[in-house]
Amino acid sequence: MLRSFVNVTFVVAITCLAPMRGDAEEPPIALKAMGSFHVGGRLMEVSGQPVREVTFAPGGVPARIDPNGKYQVEQMYVQYFIPQDERGAVPLLLWHGGGLSGVTYETTPDGREGWLNYFLRRGWAVYNSDAVERGRAGWTQYPSLFGEPVFLPVANPFERFRIGDGAGSYSDDPAKRRVNAGSQFPVEAYDNFPKQLSPRWLTTDDAITAAYVAEVDRVCPCAILVHSQGGLFGFKVAQARPDKVKALVAVEPAAFPDPSKAGTLKDIPVLLVYGDYIETDSRWPKMHQMGLDFAAKITAAGGKVDVIELPKLGIKGNSHMLMMDKNNLDVAALIQKWLGEKGLVR
Amino acid sequence: MLRSFVNVTFVVAITCLAPMRGDAEEPPIALKAMGSFHVGGRLMEVSGQPVREVTFAPGGVPARIDPNGKYQVEQMYVQYFIPQDERGAVPLLLWHGGGLSGVTYETTPDGREGWLNYFLRRGWAVYNSDAVERGRAGWTQYPSLFGEPVFLPVANPFERFRIGDGAGSYSDDPAKRRVNAGSQFPVEAYDNFPKQLSPRWLTTDDAITAAYVAEVDRVCPCAILVHSQGGLFGFKVAQARPDKVKALVAVEPAAFPDPSKAGTLKDIPVLLVYGDYIETDSRWPKMHQMGLDFAAKITAAGGKVDVIELPKLGIKGNSHMLMMDKNNLDVAALIQKWLGEKGLVR
Repeated sequence: MLRSFVNVTFVVAITCLAPMRGDAEEPPIALKAMGSFHVGGRLMEVSGQPVREVTFAPGGVPARIDPNGKYQVEQMYVQYFIPQDERGAVPLLLWHGGGLSGVTYETTPDGREGWLNYFLRRGWAVYNSDAVERGRAGWTQYPSLFGEPVFLPVANPFERFRIGDGAGSYSDDPAKRRVNAGSQFPVEAYDNFPKQLSPRWLTTDDAITAAYVAEVDRVCPCAILVHSQGGLFGFKVAQARPDKVKALVAVEPAAFPDPSKAGTLKDIPVLLVYGDYIETDSRWPKMHQMGLDFAAKITAAGGKVDVIELPKLGIKGNSHMLMMDKNNLDVAALIQKWLGEKGLVR
Repeated sequence: MLRSFVNVTFVVAITCLAPMRGDAEEPPIALKAMGSFHVGGRLMEVSGQPVREVTFAPGGVPARIDPNGKYQVEQMYVQYFIPQDERGAVPLLLWHGGGLSGVTYETTPDGREGWLNYFLRRGWAVYNSDAVERGRAGWTQYPSLFGEPVFLPVANPFERFRIGDGAGSYSDDPAKRRVNAGSQFPVEAYDNFPKQLSPRWLTTDDAITAAYVAEVDRVCPCAILVHSQGGLFGFKVAQARPDKVKALVAVEPAAFPDPSKAGTLKDIPVLLVYGDYIETDSRWPKMHQMGLDFAAKITAAGGKVDVIELPKLGIKGNSHMLMMDKNNLDVAALIQKWLGEKGLVR
């Protein structure tokens, strides 16, 4: 097991953590531009369905809805913010994890600034997105394009994202929830977090990847920061567009493409970031090891992967949702420092 | 018919249309704060369902998903932008129409600035949102909470939103689409528009209204700008919180609450805005008349309603999606002027 990541460099210095945390203490965000677009997707044909008369609103005028014809499917949504004083050498793309959307990187469940604002304030042109079938990407399952999605009850992320200490740790009564000792997650605001959950299909990986490739073709060269399920897409898209991806930050990647082809990533600087409580979790020891093994394949091919294990730096208590944890800006500062070391901060 | 809106004042002056349209010509947007939150909603209990083992990603570690328990449902998503130099007397809330999301007010399908940026540049603190079950609000239908939604094929908005000249006007071949003569809609970019469509349930009006009330309770006093289906919610919420709503701009409202109670809106300045091609549409003559009748009920109770009929001002060619039309900022300027006349611009 150790042998598998022998070539991986561990980042051990913590320097220059961002001291500013709230709106009040921060200077204004000056934007040259902000906006959004959809990218990717295709048209899907539906035929043989009966025409319906639909009255959309009470007392409204009925509309004839012919469900036959072409449907727009599998596009994704991108919202961008371009700072007036751009200091990232390339744009920074934020890709969220499974069952979530770009809201991941916005305001934390307890109302603090998230990583979108953090990187924007440091001069990055930030592209925050909702993957195919999530959030503002829109979705369709007519006629059952992707089958049934998985819906998550509120207990699930609490127990699975290393906020609580595993199965059975959630309770409807906040006072009775078994929180991991020393957790940095804003548990007092946990109930806000499930409000951003998104139904998750298990059949959409290829469609998601294709849309991300379309985003990269439109926006990049760039740096990409991915989380959790996003690991799969980040590595796959970097393999598909190795010349366009100047750095890949994988925050607790939970999925990876074929490790036998990991070597194709050798020219892209990669950073893996892991939080706390991994050893005591039922699933994360294996997923963590998958990440280290994947990194070792890249380094074996001559590539360079850095790994930040926060507990080894004395930074304790991080859940799977590091970008929402109370020390989220400290973690972001480590990523910012690494991006600077890769020559991507002007 | 005329009698029904005899007390309604028509705005007849066009002055000071905004000359600036593109990012390049505009000064930076300086934001004191930006962020997002979810508001409203409730927990729904599910029981008696079998536990599943789910492998979320190929090669991943199976997770035990117990679908029983409480689900977060019926919340809405709000994204806010607070300008450094706030010149709106109150925040401005943007509420979208049916089958859509807050993307309505962002960049237009052909890449120009939308109303979100317009009002933000004029110093309004803007709260742009996704209603219950749309976009980043998230959604659940497990176990069929709301029944089946309506999915719209790409032809539908083209024919129904007065872009094309009615049923049969859409063609897969852009060159063969029958566009309304003189249309201001960016028809060359129409194919981008259906990418922002959202499935639409017909059973969610009460849940949507409740979440909007929760937003108003959190953010207001405010001005509210609604579109299409949003008319129903704007008027209902203003009736529920008359002291909180300082102005209501209804852009082509397509639905209204009980007209017999319209008089309760008498203390709230109301503006109705209508585009072109209404007389030749199959449904809009009635919906337009419903709006004028509703306005007449408010004025009969002593209230004040202004109506902007764009063609009567010589502004021709506007579709139902005025905020995306090529003259979208000219239309926004009329709304800005009206808000100023109501004392809401500092």
